[in-house]
Amino acid sequence: MKEQISRRNVIKGAGMVAVGAALAGMGGLITKAEAKGGSTEKWPWPYEKLDPEKTAELAYNEWYRVFCGAAVISSVFSQLRDRIGEPYKSFPIDAYVFLEGGMVGWGTVCGSNAGANIVSNMIVGPRIAGPECENGAAIGADALEWYSETKLPTFIPREPRQKSKIIQTVSNSPLCHVSVGKWMKESGYALGSPERKDRCARVAASVAFNLVKDLNAWKDGTYKQKSSWKPASNFGITGQQNCTECHGAKIPTPPLAKK
Amino acid sequence: MKEQISRRNVIKGAGMVAVGAALAGMGGLITKAEAKGGSTEKWPWPYEKLDPEKTAELAYNEWYRVFCGAAVISSVFSQLRDRIGEPYKSFPIDAYVFLEGGMVGWGTVCGSNAGANIVSNMIVGPRIAGPECENGAAIGADALEWYSETKLPTFIPREPRQKSKIIQTVSNSPLCHVSVGKWMKESGYALGSPERKDRCARVAASVAFNLVKDLNAWKDGTYKQKSSWKPASNFGITGQQNCTECHGAKIPTPPLAKK
Repeated sequence: MKEQISRRNVIKGAGMVAVGAALAGMGGLITKAEAKGGSTEKWPWPYEKLDPEKTAELAYNEWYRVFCGAAVISSVFSQLRDRIGEPYKSFPIDAYVFLEGGMVGWGTVCGSNAGANIVSNMIVGPRIAGPECENGAAIGADALEWYSETKLPTFIPREPRQKSKIIQTVSNSPLCHVSVGKWMKESGYALGSPERKDRCARVAASVAFNLVKDLNAWKDGTYKQKSSWKPASNFGITGQQNCTECHGAKIPTPPLAKK
Repeated sequence: MKEQISRRNVIKGAGMVAVGAALAGMGGLITKAEAKGGSTEKWPWPYEKLDPEKTAELAYNEWYRVFCGAAVISSVFSQLRDRIGEPYKSFPIDAYVFLEGGMVGWGTVCGSNAGANIVSNMIVGPRIAGPECENGAAIGADALEWYSETKLPTFIPREPRQKSKIIQTVSNSPLCHVSVGKWMKESGYALGSPERKDRCARVAASVAFNLVKDLNAWKDGTYKQKSSWKPASNFGITGQQNCTECHGAKIPTPPLAKK
């Protein structure tokens, strides 16, 4: 399978995403995308609108089997496996357990965010595959921004494993370490507590709920990118938006001009 | 396909990874892993030893087509597509373009690290799939630690696109923002410069080289986990190892005891 993509289309697609825009301006190095795989590299993948509530319930329960990242993927793809079949049946959902704890416990990007980006970019496609795929990265970026700015968790499962109140906190960051750390500080619960685990299961469910709303809007043709964080073009470096938390008042200026 | 996994095996597998150990101790919630997919969820995937040098060259050149994360995945899986076929042919490599810039430009985990973890966990399998799969997460954690502690890039391509000297820096972090930021500060080159792009292409190649060395050792039965960073069990929170860079001297203590 080959897909020839014009430079205009690549730039149009890339313009949706900050780093995309920065990279597309590098001088015509991306002039075509040639997919080397089989049917799984033909985008967009077939999609049927899903119930956000049902998807969130699935994500909540799957968290206790495969944890945050794979739970978000499973909540969407398991339904599409049943309703559509391929290419969802060939997608190795359970391998994504490693997204737990911000990637094997290293506290980098929250697995729920990684899972949401995997889902949106698998279904809609990557930006290099043409303008009809530009919203894959956009929905992924929306997930990161929504996660960072929202009091989480928003979703309350029908049959919560923990009956005690799970407080909500705003992370101002898509990173596991920051999100879990702020929640632990505010709630007083330890990482190993059942309450923290249920909080993260509900966060995965909240992310899945929000993701499916965007995917349904995309399917209806009404999706519009909501996120506005474009650090590469606005600040000259990839980054999260909580600059002062690590840098204090002295936020460094990255080198901006060519030598 | 069903795989029944005993609790003993799950705990043995989980013991390889810090957060795994923390999660496995939660009281028997993970008693079995039931794979719902097809042949792609049968681990380990077939693997033939690859040439690290050739793999790194592929990653370097693929960076200019699909960027860091997908370049690392493509460098390994494209060879295995040719030599083995499935399940590699069904894996949608190009969808992982979104890992660029630490996930759509947000500067979270470096895409090369995410790509390495995807590769190792696809081939070897996730920890919940049983003790024969425990090294998938271990090789992924090794990639994160090696990346954080090594002067990068280590790999010099045969035909570099940039002829000028590309300096090496240590990130002390697996995050794109920190790794790229330190290199930019030291080198004086901007994010949009050809030198920064070539640096990141070489970093992807370096990660692919290192990853294939570990996968080959695993295939030979001589692989042993090298990484020792276990923040969940040692510090009570998921995290990276450069604590003082964000927290200064006042590193907070997370809640450790149950309420």
